[in-house]
Amino acid sequence: MEGVDHLAHERQKALFDVDEMKVVWAGSRHALEVSDRMSRLVASDPAFRKDNRTMLSRKELFKNTLRKTAHAWKRIIELHLTEEEASKLRSFVDEPAFTDLHWGMFVPAIKGQGTDEQQQKWLPLAYKMQIIGCYAQTELGHGSNVQGLETTATFDPKTDEFIVDSPTLTSSKWWPGGLGKVSTHAVVYARLITDGQDHGVHGFIVQLRSMDDHMPLPGITVGDIGMKFGNGAYNTMDNGVLRFDRVRIPRDQMLMRVSEVTREGKYVMSNVPRQLVYGTMVYVRQTIVSDASCALSRAVTIAMRYSAVRRQFGSQNGSPETQVIDYKTQQSRLFPLLASAYAFRFVGEWLKWLYTDVNQRLQASDFSTLPEVHACTAGLKSLTTSVTADAIEECRKLCGGHGYLCSSGLPELFAVYVPACTYEGDNVVLLLQVARYLMKTVSQLPSGKKPVGTTSYMGRVEHLMRCTSNVQRAEDWLKPNVVLQAFEARAARMSVACAEKLSEFANPEEGFAELSPNLVEASAAHCQLIVVSKFIEKLQQDIPGKGVKGQLEILCSVYALHLLHKHQGDFLSTGSITPKQASLANDQLLSLYAKVRPNAIALVDAFNYTDHYLGSVLGRYDGNVYPNLYEEAWKDPLNDSVVPDGYHEYIRPMIKQQLRNARL
Amino acid sequence: MEGVDHLAHERQKALFDVDEMKVVWAGSRHALEVSDRMSRLVASDPAFRKDNRTMLSRKELFKNTLRKTAHAWKRIIELHLTEEEASKLRSFVDEPAFTDLHWGMFVPAIKGQGTDEQQQKWLPLAYKMQIIGCYAQTELGHGSNVQGLETTATFDPKTDEFIVDSPTLTSSKWWPGGLGKVSTHAVVYARLITDGQDHGVHGFIVQLRSMDDHMPLPGITVGDIGMKFGNGAYNTMDNGVLRFDRVRIPRDQMLMRVSEVTREGKYVMSNVPRQLVYGTMVYVRQTIVSDASCALSRAVTIAMRYSAVRRQFGSQNGSPETQVIDYKTQQSRLFPLLASAYAFRFVGEWLKWLYTDVNQRLQASDFSTLPEVHACTAGLKSLTTSVTADAIEECRKLCGGHGYLCSSGLPELFAVYVPACTYEGDNVVLLLQVARYLMKTVSQLPSGKKPVGTTSYMGRVEHLMRCTSNVQRAEDWLKPNVVLQAFEARAARMSVACAEKLSEFANPEEGFAELSPNLVEASAAHCQLIVVSKFIEKLQQDIPGKGVKGQLEILCSVYALHLLHKHQGDFLSTGSITPKQASLANDQLLSLYAKVRPNAIALVDAFNYTDHYLGSVLGRYDGNVYPNLYEEAWKDPLNDSVVPDGYHEYIRPMIKQQLRNARL
Repeated sequence: MEGVDHLAHERQKALFDVDEMKVVWAGSRHALEVSDRMSRLVASDPAFRKDNRTMLSRKELFKNTLRKTAHAWKRIIELHLTEEEASKLRSFVDEPAFTDLHWGMFVPAIKGQGTDEQQQKWLPLAYKMQIIGCYAQTELGHGSNVQGLETTATFDPKTDEFIVDSPTLTSSKWWPGGLGKVSTHAVVYARLITDGQDHGVHGFIVQLRSMDDHMPLPGITVGDIGMKFGNGAYNTMDNGVLRFDRVRIPRDQMLMRVSEVTREGKYVMSNVPRQLVYGTMVYVRQTIVSDASCALSRAVTIAMRYSAVRRQFGSQNGSPETQVIDYKTQQSRLFPLLASAYAFRFVGEWLKWLYTDVNQRLQASDFSTLPEVHACTAGLKSLTTSVTADAIEECRKLCGGHGYLCSSGLPELFAVYVPACTYEGDNVVLLLQVARYLMKTVSQLPSGKKPVGTTSYMGRVEHLMRCTSNVQRAEDWLKPNVVLQAFEARAARMSVACAEKLSEFANPEEGFAELSPNLVEASAAHCQLIVVSKFIEKLQQDIPGKGVKGQLEILCSVYALHLLHKHQGDFLSTGSITPKQASLANDQLLSLYAKVRPNAIALVDAFNYTDHYLGSVLGRYDGNVYPNLYEEAWKDPLNDSVVPDGYHEYIRPMIKQQLRNARL
Repeated sequence: MEGVDHLAHERQKALFDVDEMKVVWAGSRHALEVSDRMSRLVASDPAFRKDNRTMLSRKELFKNTLRKTAHAWKRIIELHLTEEEASKLRSFVDEPAFTDLHWGMFVPAIKGQGTDEQQQKWLPLAYKMQIIGCYAQTELGHGSNVQGLETTATFDPKTDEFIVDSPTLTSSKWWPGGLGKVSTHAVVYARLITDGQDHGVHGFIVQLRSMDDHMPLPGITVGDIGMKFGNGAYNTMDNGVLRFDRVRIPRDQMLMRVSEVTREGKYVMSNVPRQLVYGTMVYVRQTIVSDASCALSRAVTIAMRYSAVRRQFGSQNGSPETQVIDYKTQQSRLFPLLASAYAFRFVGEWLKWLYTDVNQRLQASDFSTLPEVHACTAGLKSLTTSVTADAIEECRKLCGGHGYLCSSGLPELFAVYVPACTYEGDNVVLLLQVARYLMKTVSQLPSGKKPVGTTSYMGRVEHLMRCTSNVQRAEDWLKPNVVLQAFEARAARMSVACAEKLSEFANPEEGFAELSPNLVEASAAHCQLIVVSKFIEKLQQDIPGKGVKGQLEILCSVYALHLLHKHQGDFLSTGSITPKQASLANDQLLSLYAKVRPNAIALVDAFNYTDHYLGSVLGRYDGNVYPNLYEEAWKDPLNDSVVPDGYHEYIRPMIKQQLRNARL
């Protein structure tokens, strides 16, 4: 059956141009071409195979990743790949590795916080990987609260050095990726102390290991923090622990772009505005949102294809059973996730624009949009990663029992993805930050201050507090303006309700703490509105290709209406819509699924993932699932012998009733 | 710091008698005593240590479980443990193993479906473990739809044998635990064929392996199906694949209690009613619900204790930071899960009663309650396992980054628990079965048929369709009757709404399929009502112990009101309550958290779990988390050497710019 496409009949049903949809998903023809070329390069290179990953022991797994990382770097050099190509190649290798932190955190930290001289000294070394760096911020006792870090860097004017120290157990650096076994250097965050004065947390470049033999330098204790969730997943990464016993570094290894310590030990702020760090923050969060759409679309691809292959129940007179994708319960769980993948893709694209915009403003010393940008990116990071983590697990369940096998690819995808809910800001903490901004925005409305960017709808708060939805038939819910008004009314009313409750407290901080569960819900409503509105904005653009825009319009409606149904409590309790209108929205949603159905397989084909990247027997492009599941099983090490290791010691004595005398 | 109780100040706050609560949780003083003794027996025996589990390769892991299983059996024999004690001991060993299926499925199948002679022949062998059995039902292509199984057992009158055969690849048995490497026998489900006629699926006892050397018998292909979700988790189990190539078994190995094949090849039904199998079904589902309360309470214990240890933000003037358990956002996520654990415990207890009741009725050939019992147990299995799976992951997230470490115990607990959502009936398929029963119940109301058991509230449907809640103040939501009426009204109205929509379809089956997403929601509402009402019923009993009943009343309110808030869309769209009342419910819920807070640690102590069973550094009884997390890290095999394996081949050539010539 090699070469047969078991899903061909599904692909023929599609009512739109899949190749044009690929361009839309990738962002541009150029991006599609690069992605396509890099993913094939990785998929066709046996050095990058990953199907055995879940069977390796920790040590084998880690060594194997070192090998792949070196091979990838070698190919990058040999093929003279551009930065864009190299980054794509690394992402298609699809294994967390120390290089993620070297390129994603160490290099940007030096670029963002280092002086020109520091950049000239360190960046060329990092670019050639003559040094390997990581980002040592979080500590055993300190994560979200960066200002609570305990590591100290005390200036010693006698020697012109900083003394980096871990004064307590809880001050041990804990979690930094690449730290445990590989990195030669780290950007270490520590409390700067000069002349007994604590200036708060600053970054320092610290060499950790000898460049000769890789041994930790004197005063440095470093190691791996142990096994993490999943079989492969992040266990390919050496997340590390690090303790300093009065380690001395030269003064010029403090990152001094924003503030510096002089030879005399004076702490001086430079004229570079602190707000510059926000550029990096927007960039990182944009990457996370884009990663979310990636992980979500992978999971959806696997579940969608397998749902078209899997048949269960419904056989009549010997006909084949029903494809599970034809069950409305399957559709009502899976199609909204497909729509969410597209929604997150487009909001991620918009964040790329936002990053450019913020950078231009920063260059011009315009910091006016920063608070709104901070709130909006925090909220979108939280929303997209939470939804994606849950959605991967939902896709796994949608594959029934077989989704529990590692060969489905979904357990690993889940385990490798979920930390995104915690790193770069815990998702609930981030929603509380959004809430603070929303409460501030509401409180300033009476003074006439115009809300900007994603909160500009708040400028119409009076209208939104009293408007009613004019939906009368299910089809009315297909109108973007109708949807948008309902989401705006809900979000505005939830924020205003929180603000009113807050004003009853004498102590606003106490009120904020007491009401925080409500505030989190108001933030979520605001963030959902952003994603819906950016999807709608996307559809106002010109989108070429037969049927492409039409499909996206359907998905946009599915996305918005499934949210409306899921959170109808919000919409109804705020009176933004009536129970009858909520019911019509749900009717419309169910009937949209019938429109998605014929296009479902083509809509996941448009993500253009190779079988290598998907890493899933259930999600194979050709749908030839069962023979391959069967073959995959025999590769397990337990099948190396017919009679298992341990039979003679443990099973036979049991059966033969000789256990009493056995040594176990 | 050994021996110091870092959570002592939390325990002193408790306003109730923890020891008496332990009795309530365990179900009786006797049950508590047995559990306590068995859990300590396991915890104190070094042969049962499990802290290294996630670092073992598949083969080591599996062999280790064989050893533990043999050791457990040896101890059971040596100590002359009762069946109750033995079963508890096995559960505290806390590792899925072939014995789960031997005792939990193979033995019950023979007891339930075997004739008296068959029981006399096979059960003594099984009880002594002279044979080891598994339960071979699901196939590669067939899970939920048991009637679609493809394996055949064809009677050959010439030799008085059945020929068991796997006619297709998709007919390969797939998933049975204990099958892959250990079981000598299996109860195999196959289509019975006599004289060319297909009589549907029946059970057969088939020997798989030689009792001499454990080699598979001729015609049998058997092996392990490969790695599953998680590091340890179900990888200690040899879930297997099995193919038959015309394997012959004697006629008397068909399980013939309900129907038999005579020597002449005639298929005859016995006078034993088929409904007897329902007894087993209720038993199995009761076990699953009870397991859910176990898994959920373990996860909650870990998250609760660590939330009391972990501090973050809120430090003022050098005071310690705030315990994260004091944040309302943490409470609003964690306390409802604590309440759910208790709720599931009590509904599980009620299911034990139901099992006795059903068995008594079956003995008396009273099958009248069976449809309702089937629907109710299906729904409770679905509800409790879905909630528990999600809750474990939520508890993991509530532990922040450290929850992602295997040493937190939560990744493993999640991976080992989630299959419960799929096995013994996919949770969504089960809710659709509930929905069928609900629709039937509603349709029979006009004829005056009185709904029974958990659906008896439907008998008051006219009242429930028009009643209004008389809640005026937040405290009104503390009244059980008020809560009950809101849940009954919501459930009844959702069912009736579905029934009305269904009646618009000419073809009821088509209608059922189209409306299935709505039907699933109606079923969920019904199931939540059951759990709430059983919690309330529990509180009508006499419950001794200072403050114990008071605590449970608070938890019962938390359970009901958090459901009400989470699903307020249902309550509002059905008009069961008003938006104002929904808001008061949420206010009441938030203020209840303050009452739970001082008792939070004692309420998880009442589960009486040993540190061994919890298997979590974060959930340690003494709260001494950080030094132990730190120590745990160094045990990872990656820390065996300071310079990692692979440095010379892959890292050094990279740093030294010698990669071009390297062989990778």
